[in-house]
Amino acid sequence: MVDVHTHMYTPEYIKMLESRDTIPMIRNYPGYSDPRLILLSTELEGLDSAPQASPPPGRPLTKHFSSLEQKIHYMDTHGIDVSVVSLANPWLDFVEPELAAKVAETINNDFSSMCARYPGRLYFFGTLPVSAPLDDIIASVRHLASLRYCRGVIMGTSGLGKGLDDPDLLPVFRALETATPATSATTRSNSEGSGEDSGSGSTRGLPIFLHPHYGLPTSVWGPRAAEYGHVLPLSIGFPVETTIAVARMYLAGVFDAVPGLLLLLAHSGGTLPFLAGRIESCVAHDGLVSAGDRRPRKSLKEVLRSNVCLDAVIYSDVGLKAAIETAGETRIMFGTDHPFFPPLDRDVDGVWDSVTFNTDAIAAVMNSSDEGTRRVMGGNAVDILRLD
Amino acid sequence: MVDVHTHMYTPEYIKMLESRDTIPMIRNYPGYSDPRLILLSTELEGLDSAPQASPPPGRPLTKHFSSLEQKIHYMDTHGIDVSVVSLANPWLDFVEPELAAKVAETINNDFSSMCARYPGRLYFFGTLPVSAPLDDIIASVRHLASLRYCRGVIMGTSGLGKGLDDPDLLPVFRALETATPATSATTRSNSEGSGEDSGSGSTRGLPIFLHPHYGLPTSVWGPRAAEYGHVLPLSIGFPVETTIAVARMYLAGVFDAVPGLLLLLAHSGGTLPFLAGRIESCVAHDGLVSAGDRRPRKSLKEVLRSNVCLDAVIYSDVGLKAAIETAGETRIMFGTDHPFFPPLDRDVDGVWDSVTFNTDAIAAVMNSSDEGTRRVMGGNAVDILRLD
Repeated sequence: MVDVHTHMYTPEYIKMLESRDTIPMIRNYPGYSDPRLILLSTELEGLDSAPQASPPPGRPLTKHFSSLEQKIHYMDTHGIDVSVVSLANPWLDFVEPELAAKVAETINNDFSSMCARYPGRLYFFGTLPVSAPLDDIIASVRHLASLRYCRGVIMGTSGLGKGLDDPDLLPVFRALETATPATSATTRSNSEGSGEDSGSGSTRGLPIFLHPHYGLPTSVWGPRAAEYGHVLPLSIGFPVETTIAVARMYLAGVFDAVPGLLLLLAHSGGTLPFLAGRIESCVAHDGLVSAGDRRPRKSLKEVLRSNVCLDAVIYSDVGLKAAIETAGETRIMFGTDHPFFPPLDRDVDGVWDSVTFNTDAIAAVMNSSDEGTRRVMGGNAVDILRLD
Repeated sequence: MVDVHTHMYTPEYIKMLESRDTIPMIRNYPGYSDPRLILLSTELEGLDSAPQASPPPGRPLTKHFSSLEQKIHYMDTHGIDVSVVSLANPWLDFVEPELAAKVAETINNDFSSMCARYPGRLYFFGTLPVSAPLDDIIASVRHLASLRYCRGVIMGTSGLGKGLDDPDLLPVFRALETATPATSATTRSNSEGSGEDSGSGSTRGLPIFLHPHYGLPTSVWGPRAAEYGHVLPLSIGFPVETTIAVARMYLAGVFDAVPGLLLLLAHSGGTLPFLAGRIESCVAHDGLVSAGDRRPRKSLKEVLRSNVCLDAVIYSDVGLKAAIETAGETRIMFGTDHPFFPPLDRDVDGVWDSVTFNTDAIAAVMNSSDEGTRRVMGGNAVDILRLD
């Protein structure tokens, strides 16, 4: 069993958040034992109009965010053999440009050391210094490719600040597409000999784990937003952010310009499996986009089958089925989103509902197909991410 | 074959748009024979940065928007026996409060007369004067219930201006829930005797056809938005608007307060079929919303099976399957979205791709189930909307 969607903050990163007084930040509140991790602007808005006795903003920064032992305990509790860990949002998006390259190097080396402490149980997606000059970002890709346990990079949707359809990002995408990971030689020949038709990332460079953070402008949640806690920004804002980011990449021709780019999309692709048909129809019916060389050469359907993998973090059989039909059964990978969504009413050291919802969905969709379950629960991740 | 998602502008409505100089409006541009219908703020933004030789903003106001004969021709061309027509967005959202009741009455009477010209082939969803005082809105519900061919109301997501989770809207929802349509007596007994378990709107008051218009704030489309035409606002902004509106209603407890409310959701529910599991998981994991009496009593899954019907306007088999699994096979109804999405490269009097994409998806999903196809293509609409 492999978990491809699981986050950690390193000690250095936490120190950085503690030193800040704008989001993202860590703050202490009297009467609360754990400090609060405040990541989203919506978490600070509407505090005045929130109901009495509301908890302080953000979420408790428990040891689940920072302790490697806790991560291993969580893995053992849920039967997870291997985790591909990644820094949680908002990564290094907010870091001063002149510091970013150094911070990224430290954090990536820290992840690397953590993985080395549990050989075979931990891999990681690295973090790029997206606010740094382009040369530093490319150097960071090379650094990550040299790290034994690195299997890709995690990235938000803002890119260098203007979104993932920014032409200035193309060199970064190309560097990732052509990166030669330290481990690639052996696994490449394994993959070629395996006869698998996953057509997936096996022989590729470093995939991008594309993850939301910014959600949608708060006005869309309306005047009663504070009554609804984090539900709307997390359940709708996050997946829609991912959807928009990929649609913009598609319309900008990124997948034509960098045909070998591989994205692992968080939360089963946001809403792309459901909306892909509507997006393609709108492309076909738009006088501007459908004209001449402006129309993407690959269809979106094709992109979703060749440039995209999805995690299985969608919490329902209906959604999971759509995800599988969109990306293909060989390209869906189990994930947990740990340490987010802990149980509220029972021991956090036990089994988490946020995991069970997804394993139940997988069991329901895969029905009696042992091979399909094996693939989604880990086999696909082993193949696509070249896990040993 | 019944089309439940098909729009028209009446002559009065067009006159009103022609007299305006802010959206929504109708404008003439030199060199273009048809006037331009400009509905969305995004259509006016980024005009300066748009590529050379771009068409003027909005879309051509062809006879497809206003001619009843053209509607009938379109129906005949596509094998549609019955259409349930509705005013296109943005309905009466923008009308001066003191004029709204009168305008609504005129427009609803006009729709009524149009339907009477083709008995049995046309029904309509009426339009409420949402900017008028509450009493006028309730009076409009009663007026609509008295009209022989009215089968519900079309409504946007802004409600009285503050969204559909506005407590001031509850009297309107209750008036719709308890309305006694002119035709209900006979059909109610038919429905009771039919033994169908559609559990649907057959014995209800007037359903709401919930339709997007406002989309998302333009900032989310990024700096290159003008290059992408209308694709992003229409393919993502629209369905997400619907998703947010229903999620807000759900969290506000509208479906607990008005348990008989029936919504027909445009575009197969926006993205709700795909995101419902994530929304429920976020509710269960939110300390504020899951606590005490703040949590909705009905599950979202239950709401989507008892308070919601979906059109089949989703342009893919993957999406349609998710829609059917969410609402149930007895609650999905074929629609076209005419006169939007005309073919760009062939005769607009012929068959439209925007219809074929959806009929193909229905055929693919229903496979060899004649009964399922019959239901989605019209049987469900006859039952739920009490068509003769």
